[in-house]
Amino acid sequence: MLSAPPAAPPPVAPPHIVIVGAGFGGLHAARSLAGRPVRVTIVDRHNYHSFQPLFYQVATAGLEPDAIAHAVRAVLRRAKNVDFRLGEVTGIDTAARALRFADGPPLAYDALIVAPGASTAYYGVEGAREHGWGLKSLADAVRLRAHVLGRFERYSLLGEGAGEGALTFVIVGGGATGVEMAGAFHELFRMALRHDYKTFDPSRAARIVLLEREDALLAGYPDRLRAYARRVLERRNVEVRTGAAVARVEADGVVLASGERIAAGTLVWAAGVEASPLVALLPGEKGPGGRAHVRPDLSLAADAGVFVIGDAAFVEGSGTLPQLAPVAIQQGKHAARNALRAVRGETLEPFRYRDLGSMATIGRNAAVAMLFGRVPLTGFPAWLAWVFVHLMQLVGFRNRLLVFVNWVHSYFTYDRGARLILGDGAAEGLRGPLDAPVPGRLHVRTAETL
Amino acid sequence: MLSAPPAAPPPVAPPHIVIVGAGFGGLHAARSLAGRPVRVTIVDRHNYHSFQPLFYQVATAGLEPDAIAHAVRAVLRRAKNVDFRLGEVTGIDTAARALRFADGPPLAYDALIVAPGASTAYYGVEGAREHGWGLKSLADAVRLRAHVLGRFERYSLLGEGAGEGALTFVIVGGGATGVEMAGAFHELFRMALRHDYKTFDPSRAARIVLLEREDALLAGYPDRLRAYARRVLERRNVEVRTGAAVARVEADGVVLASGERIAAGTLVWAAGVEASPLVALLPGEKGPGGRAHVRPDLSLAADAGVFVIGDAAFVEGSGTLPQLAPVAIQQGKHAARNALRAVRGETLEPFRYRDLGSMATIGRNAAVAMLFGRVPLTGFPAWLAWVFVHLMQLVGFRNRLLVFVNWVHSYFTYDRGARLILGDGAAEGLRGPLDAPVPGRLHVRTAETL
Repeated sequence: MLSAPPAAPPPVAPPHIVIVGAGFGGLHAARSLAGRPVRVTIVDRHNYHSFQPLFYQVATAGLEPDAIAHAVRAVLRRAKNVDFRLGEVTGIDTAARALRFADGPPLAYDALIVAPGASTAYYGVEGAREHGWGLKSLADAVRLRAHVLGRFERYSLLGEGAGEGALTFVIVGGGATGVEMAGAFHELFRMALRHDYKTFDPSRAARIVLLEREDALLAGYPDRLRAYARRVLERRNVEVRTGAAVARVEADGVVLASGERIAAGTLVWAAGVEASPLVALLPGEKGPGGRAHVRPDLSLAADAGVFVIGDAAFVEGSGTLPQLAPVAIQQGKHAARNALRAVRGETLEPFRYRDLGSMATIGRNAAVAMLFGRVPLTGFPAWLAWVFVHLMQLVGFRNRLLVFVNWVHSYFTYDRGARLILGDGAAEGLRGPLDAPVPGRLHVRTAETL
Repeated sequence: MLSAPPAAPPPVAPPHIVIVGAGFGGLHAARSLAGRPVRVTIVDRHNYHSFQPLFYQVATAGLEPDAIAHAVRAVLRRAKNVDFRLGEVTGIDTAARALRFADGPPLAYDALIVAPGASTAYYGVEGAREHGWGLKSLADAVRLRAHVLGRFERYSLLGEGAGEGALTFVIVGGGATGVEMAGAFHELFRMALRHDYKTFDPSRAARIVLLEREDALLAGYPDRLRAYARRVLERRNVEVRTGAAVARVEADGVVLASGERIAAGTLVWAAGVEASPLVALLPGEKGPGGRAHVRPDLSLAADAGVFVIGDAAFVEGSGTLPQLAPVAIQQGKHAARNALRAVRGETLEPFRYRDLGSMATIGRNAAVAMLFGRVPLTGFPAWLAWVFVHLMQLVGFRNRLLVFVNWVHSYFTYDRGARLILGDGAAEGLRGPLDAPVPGRLHVRTAETL
């Protein structure tokens, strides 16, 4: 006969790892910790992960917002040790190892991964925040879509009475976001809206101006690709203005450093990003753009139990890595492993970035890509690679399917289905020229402040 | 040799027919007038037609809003003589034959088709408007979705501290909307949310109560179907309370005429509709629910150049027809023909309603239907008929495809993809109990008031 089994030791609560932010970095950190011997809570002010690289397609009526967002709980439903908390973090108490929130009780942690992403950087340019449209949230994208479509409705109603530049769309910043936005505006105006209006031709009435302060678009890409992007955009009637620094943004136009003024009804600010304001709540030195200085192992010098990743981190040694999903994803996985090591008292490992490349589409059949940081591609092959990579990066089968259906439909019909003036923006559909909600109002009225 | 052709007579501007409202009635009126020798302007305060019968699926995260909305201009792009105007009508001057708008110049007409649909009727019940959720616009549906999902987030954070009835969902009104809503809540809680929460079981924690003041659900259907609907709902854990009239709605509950109080975090008001406030701008007598009294030919007794259709009309002789898409569609087509006759000075024809039937789904595999007003169906056949009819009624291939993809995905995965707390509602995700925005705020903050 066997003796009775020894009494089980009293259960010890597993260490608690908290992740702030459900972007690429945070979500991949959480996934890496699924099934490991820790308790994990991922926190976000939205209940969904959203696919930032395609915000511009929402803003230009190419995709509906739901196609590129996925409920965080749904992504992590099989991870029994991972829970989600909807809330806005208002304080990080590293001494007490606890987060404070706008609503509800504080949350204690044993290790913390901070992955809040980036905000739009305005570099102190007068009027840019008030009158320019940023594109850092799904709500931003839906509002910009309403604004853009509203410009055409207003013009169809008032004609020349809509004012000078009523249909001029200025994009500030010739990086990937600016280039993609310019290309997408062209397709929206030229292909979808063109047949919508009977009294004027939107593709002729509208003007797209892309402003870049450097001498070429797409900094960081090889010269050949930069020249290609410019050529394609110009062929698609985008006025590309390089060496054009913005001095001031006004309610109905933009003034360049040269003194030239461009009247415009819409100004998209794609000139740069800075770390989320959440980073300011962390102790220790801040790097360029307000990023937290982290050691090569992604931990804070001031607190080895806190990891900062993605657009919020400035990694000692490697410096500012590109603001790309692969960086955030790789760092998210690495921070998860190091957080496990930290709670076990093990030595942390340094992070190494594997360059998978970068790419930007200029619209239908045209893109630039640097695969693995060394294989340059342009034109149709680059565009196909872009489509494939973006479909693969989307989270969840349903989102992939919806995006795929939308893209195939648009590709063959030359139409853009999602051109709805929905939500907040609708009330402003016909109103003022650069009617970006001012940040104060925005803060009160939108999803930004859960 | 032929002689020169006679000089063409000076062009006469074709008569102008204006349609107010791009719902089922207005849109079908506009389509009927495509290519006819008239100029047509269709006016709506939204730039899209939306598919009201599926609003409840948006509110319960089954469909994304874009799947059931279609830009009006896109629907009518091939109709060269039909234009669209985005705007809110604030006055109808039948003497001058012109509409006034909140924005932009007035619009003159030769014949007018008024198809503004219905608003929620609160029958003077105290607190119903302030604390109850109506479902008469896509914006309503998106906000209700955010509110419902927010209730679960709040409960997961605060547990019992969320208050009594925090997860009680009361639906007032056991008509088709109420029944469909109750069934959809069940599916959302039982199938999608159930696996989302690790600390409680939403399908057990949540309570769905359907209140109906009559003795059975689904007034107008045969008794057998009414009993079937009740049986299915009860089997799906919906508490069906018939003979339950609402006396008062409070911030965190509802008081019945019997004096009983049910604590509730959410109250959906599906008890009835009344004609849009726009109808009050028309001259002449009003029928029940504020509907405009129209003659059998759908024209106003006070002005034979003005036609009123759909939920806004009370037709002499036939009385109040059911609030169904087929009624609006048939009347829209008929009003279009009569408007043509009116501008030509011809005699108007009376409208005759052809009953195509009515149907309501109770969720997966279960529905009731009265095909052509005489063939009763229940269960899976009724549900299949419901799916087919709704897919066919959707406007546009893309919407049909998106809805189909969503439905097939949900049917096989038991999941609901669109459970996002988006837009206005997100800021309130964790706040108060019955936090329906009060109408005043709603008016300022939403798409309701272009």
